[in-house]
Amino acid sequence: MSTASPTPNEQPGHFLQFASDNTSGICPEAMQALVAADVGFAASYGNDHATQQACDRIRELFEADAEVFFVFNGTAANSIALASLCQSYQAVICSDTAHVETDECGAPEFFSNGSKLLSAPHRQGKLTSAGVLEVITRRTDVHYPRPKVVTLTQSTEMGTLYQKGEISGISRVAQEHGLKVHMDGARFANAVAALGVAPADITWRAGVDVLCFGGTKMGLPIGEAIVFFDRRLGEEFAYRCKQAGQLASKMRYLSAPWLAMLTDGVWLRHAGHANAMAHRLSEKVAAIAGAELLLPTEANGVFVNLPEAALTRLKAMGWTFYTFIGGGARFMCSWATTEAAVDHLVRDMDRALGG
Amino acid sequence: MSTASPTPNEQPGHFLQFASDNTSGICPEAMQALVAADVGFAASYGNDHATQQACDRIRELFEADAEVFFVFNGTAANSIALASLCQSYQAVICSDTAHVETDECGAPEFFSNGSKLLSAPHRQGKLTSAGVLEVITRRTDVHYPRPKVVTLTQSTEMGTLYQKGEISGISRVAQEHGLKVHMDGARFANAVAALGVAPADITWRAGVDVLCFGGTKMGLPIGEAIVFFDRRLGEEFAYRCKQAGQLASKMRYLSAPWLAMLTDGVWLRHAGHANAMAHRLSEKVAAIAGAELLLPTEANGVFVNLPEAALTRLKAMGWTFYTFIGGGARFMCSWATTEAAVDHLVRDMDRALGG
Amino acid sequence: MSTASPTPNEQPGHFLQFASDNTSGICPEAMQALVAADVGFAASYGNDHATQQACDRIRELFEADAEVFFVFNGTAANSIALASLCQSYQAVICSDTAHVETDECGAPEFFSNGSKLLSAPHRQGKLTSAGVLEVITRRTDVHYPRPKVVTLTQSTEMGTLYQKGEISGISRVAQEHGLKVHMDGARFANAVAALGVAPADITWRAGVDVLCFGGTKMGLPIGEAIVFFDRRLGEEFAYRCKQAGQLASKMRYLSAPWLAMLTDGVWLRHAGHANAMAHRLSEKVAAIAGAELLLPTEANGVFVNLPEAALTRLKAMGWTFYTFIGGGARFMCSWATTEAAVDHLVRDMDRALGG
Amino acid sequence: MSTASPTPNEQPGHFLQFASDNTSGICPEAMQALVAADVGFAASYGNDHATQQACDRIRELFEADAEVFFVFNGTAANSIALASLCQSYQAVICSDTAHVETDECGAPEFFSNGSKLLSAPHRQGKLTSAGVLEVITRRTDVHYPRPKVVTLTQSTEMGTLYQKGEISGISRVAQEHGLKVHMDGARFANAVAALGVAPADITWRAGVDVLCFGGTKMGLPIGEAIVFFDRRLGEEFAYRCKQAGQLASKMRYLSAPWLAMLTDGVWLRHAGHANAMAHRLSEKVAAIAGAELLLPTEANGVFVNLPEAALTRLKAMGWTFYTFIGGGARFMCSWATTEAAVDHLVRDMDRALGG
Repeated sequence: MSTASPTPNEQPGHFLQFASDNTSGICPEAMQALVAADVGFAASYGNDHATQQACDRIRELFEADAEVFFVFNGTAANSIALASLCQSYQAVICSDTAHVETDECGAPEFFSNGSKLLSAPHRQGKLTSAGVLEVITRRTDVHYPRPKVVTLTQSTEMGTLYQKGEISGISRVAQEHGLKVHMDGARFANAVAALGVAPADITWRAGVDVLCFGGTKMGLPIGEAIVFFDRRLGEEFAYRCKQAGQLASKMRYLSAPWLAMLTDGVWLRHAGHANAMAHRLSEKVAAIAGAELLLPTEANGVFVNLPEAALTRLKAMGWTFYTFIGGGARFMCSWATTEAAVDHLVRDMDRALGG
Repeated sequence: MSTASPTPNEQPGHFLQFASDNTSGICPEAMQALVAADVGFAASYGNDHATQQACDRIRELFEADAEVFFVFNGTAANSIALASLCQSYQAVICSDTAHVETDECGAPEFFSNGSKLLSAPHRQGKLTSAGVLEVITRRTDVHYPRPKVVTLTQSTEMGTLYQKGEISGISRVAQEHGLKVHMDGARFANAVAALGVAPADITWRAGVDVLCFGGTKMGLPIGEAIVFFDRRLGEEFAYRCKQAGQLASKMRYLSAPWLAMLTDGVWLRHAGHANAMAHRLSEKVAAIAGAELLLPTEANGVFVNLPEAALTRLKAMGWTFYTFIGGGARFMCSWATTEAAVDHLVRDMDRALGG
Repeated sequence: MSTASPTPNEQPGHFLQFASDNTSGICPEAMQALVAADVGFAASYGNDHATQQACDRIRELFEADAEVFFVFNGTAANSIALASLCQSYQAVICSDTAHVETDECGAPEFFSNGSKLLSAPHRQGKLTSAGVLEVITRRTDVHYPRPKVVTLTQSTEMGTLYQKGEISGISRVAQEHGLKVHMDGARFANAVAALGVAPADITWRAGVDVLCFGGTKMGLPIGEAIVFFDRRLGEEFAYRCKQAGQLASKMRYLSAPWLAMLTDGVWLRHAGHANAMAHRLSEKVAAIAGAELLLPTEANGVFVNLPEAALTRLKAMGWTFYTFIGGGARFMCSWATTEAAVDHLVRDMDRALGG
Repeated sequence: MSTASPTPNEQPGHFLQFASDNTSGICPEAMQALVAADVGFAASYGNDHATQQACDRIRELFEADAEVFFVFNGTAANSIALASLCQSYQAVICSDTAHVETDECGAPEFFSNGSKLLSAPHRQGKLTSAGVLEVITRRTDVHYPRPKVVTLTQSTEMGTLYQKGEISGISRVAQEHGLKVHMDGARFANAVAALGVAPADITWRAGVDVLCFGGTKMGLPIGEAIVFFDRRLGEEFAYRCKQAGQLASKMRYLSAPWLAMLTDGVWLRHAGHANAMAHRLSEKVAAIAGAELLLPTEANGVFVNLPEAALTRLKAMGWTFYTFIGGGARFMCSWATTEAAVDHLVRDMDRALGG
């Protein structure tokens, strides 16, 4: 799924709100933690208390003695995690809708120094174990890179969710063939909130080796967490972070907001709200004549088919959102999306359709 | 200069204050700007107003139509700036005390995919034009990487300052041989404050092509600015940032604090304070029997020779600072260093010496 | 087109002859030149007379003041040529049947440190200018690598040929959008022999910037020539060869056979013979009931559809050839393929079909 | 040791003979094997009989079940072997006279995607276990790449030899700290011939994990063997060779000459001759007034100090050799060096000195 108008024109205020969940600001709890962390001196490079506590909190949350690293953004998180799992002559299996394939400007190939991404067929953005198996077994000669990792996005770039069994099915195939399983969790919070499962259930208990746990889209200013459920996989990862330009000196400003988010279920409350807003939008769109849902709304994204002219009119009204080659538009909800904004959008959509 | 005890034990509160300028927090003006930026939605990836304004402000400051990029940290800033200036089979000339050589875990080689760093002789951390010339002209065969960039650190890792004429002397040699000049300005603010010059005078007017302007050590939470004085050198640099995992989605939280720092001379006031604290420390240390200044104090770092036993005692008292193989200790001052802390340190140093 | 049985079982003698043109030996003229070059001492790394003469001969042949480099194999030739044309955050447009995409184990991504290969639609292995244009203009945001090179294979991996006008049509689109044109000429000799054109006509006069001119499949023991028609593109390429492990110390043994091949039309005589053998095979196959030509035979490869059982029987008889997922087999002819071998194969094919 | 005049002017015939052992041709036995290998078709990419036999022969020679790969040149052999032993954020310890440091244009850094080479002190080109230990234990923080490999050159770039005990001493230090040991054996034959030991004694029995066994300088046209004594280290190395452009399609032309060289002690006879010529030269030089041996002659290189004027005169007479910054010249002998040439050189040296 390649984006036709990826850079939304900047617009003041609330009209930007459906372009991406990263146009939202910092959620109040994270901001409060950030301000609170700014007291006196602290050891740099993660040797501070806030960082240690945030790591512990993540281990608690996942009920696992995981190795945790905080890095600056999702491009880096996914790319260096993948690079740690495969050599340059090995390959990563992904959906061709995967963000690592479509929107990272070659970052995975760059950080791995050449690992190829191999597309496997997907259903609504989700890989299948049969499709993964086909790619794994397709070739065995040295002229073709050996698959070494499968990467899943949860929730997917198409707004859908992997069920626990779907993940473990893919993981089983991967393990049987010596592959590791990586999860791009840019919107992991939305998935957990929607599925109502324990984080462990859709990660390590389902065979995931490494999770890139997205913080930015969840409401943080900056930063993602890389969680190695098998500590040996993360053994020298601190060096990799450093060399890759992903070791923050004033780490507390990355980690303290994480700690706040993961305390008292703040993260799930915000993610749940984003999901609820998407469902509200989805239900109302379904009722509009001329609009058509392209995909089921399972997390915080709503994919709608509207006539080209209607999309143009909607943009002219000031709304920003991504559109796709071949038609369709994506509307993302976040912790900051309000019911009023959703309702306003729906009304304007209706107007744009000449309703 | 390689560090013997690079990771200070974490200590609560003020005692950490001399380990590095990055153990300090966010200065008040930056924090205020960060909080103020958190209003509603904003276009992501730098397409927001705060980022545009911060870029404009930097152009104003340098009196130049420069191309500006905000990235997450200094490792990345220097490494990708260098990578943009040289191909993998070319080389970067640096002092062997340069941070890119001693403390980046191979990041410049990683991002450039193999560009070698070639050491040139230095005086108190500063390259000389004669030394640079010698390295440039040493070899011309294909078995040796062709020098393509000279990198200077201002202020240097040894706390010294390049004078305007020293920079232009090196730049002249570089230009005559087709090399570009890069400045690692992790502590550029301290240099400008100390030298009392216009930023342009010690950068592009002295032949510098690219400056990595340090924000973190100056008082920001996160983030450095890469300033290409020749816009053509930065032409496709946005792609490089993206691929290198250095494009922040919520860019406003990097850029808004920059804007605040560069308004009404905030950055120079803080840097000047840090320098003043270093001079206060330096003068008092010079008066202590048994302590010896290893290097002139020109910016915000004080390098002191103390007997091993005294260093050990000082650490036992709770002070943290870096020590060096072969002897000596480094004490860094920042915007947050107080006169009281300096005086306290001096008293304890005297005690540690048995005074 | 991915190969299902890429590694032929080794068989003694003539039965291997249709697996690939690289199972053939050294042609007599090349061998004679190799032996003749072995006289006394010679300057290393290409500073010898044979190498200079071979470069001159290539310039003559292409009627161009080209920059020429001899490297060890096609993987390297294509990969480092592409790497010299694009930065890591840029992309290469190719057919998804291209050898660089399907059979180089990620070498182009490795040598370029991450340049993505973007597939454009093809007709019988050939890119079209419309398809290339679509990929170039698909995206313009920094999240997607900017296309910088188009690579064509001549003759193609499907045994077809680009006509002069097809190449110049693609080149025009490329040039208009700032892309360079690279030609993978692993079987360039077969193309020139088949088309009966001047080498210049289907390279630089048709807009090709760089040609990887295949030597091995043509009858050399080892080695390909990289020909930069625009000398500026090859300016520092000698350093790249060295760093990439592609600078032969005893270069004369690579270059002297080249000189012999390009003298008195030896290369075209051999390539023409290979093409003739393919046509002979093709015509006879067309006459066999149950066998079907999958693609037109334009150069030295014959693509045949045979029932699975027949293919198995043919292999059991000792013949080796590549088969493809989804059916079909490829039979490659070379300078060493004899009429008798072709006829023998055809008889066995007929037998395998139960004829 | 950096070379001041690395590219000898090309001269016809015998005068080139002391520049490097790679200005020699192919030795008769290797040439004969090359010609003999050119019979009919053979499976490509190393799946041929000659390659299998050559691998077996190397295993026999080293009395070890080693994994063997043939690649094109020494730059590649050393670089990809090192890359297979360390990640990009790890480091390689070498002497600063090591060829990988001084004459590979950054190839090790390129193939490893950024592994730093760390210099350890040397005595006449040889690392010491104390020096290696110092570098290993110097730093333990993430800002400095973790040493993971030690590389030794045998015989060294200064013409000296590691004794068995010296190697095992270094290996012990390496093993105790989790490092692997790599041997650059560009002139391994000269070392074995000079020391009169079993190849196993100065490799795996002394703790060497991987040997790059030089073929070119020994008398082959092209090609080096990479020998992994621990098969697990070479497990996926075939993919690495492929991706790195080091998999020859017509492999038999690399491997068959190896087989010939390692049969009936051909390699040692030739290497022994080269060493003997060096000793002859060395003894005669020692007797010349005004000439001074800079280093002991232990293998096939002679390092001589001559006044600048004498060196200039010697070059004017047509002799080619490498000279060094700071004075001195290197004369290399090979299988092809004759007693007459040595004696002629000595006479001219004497004349050049005004003798």
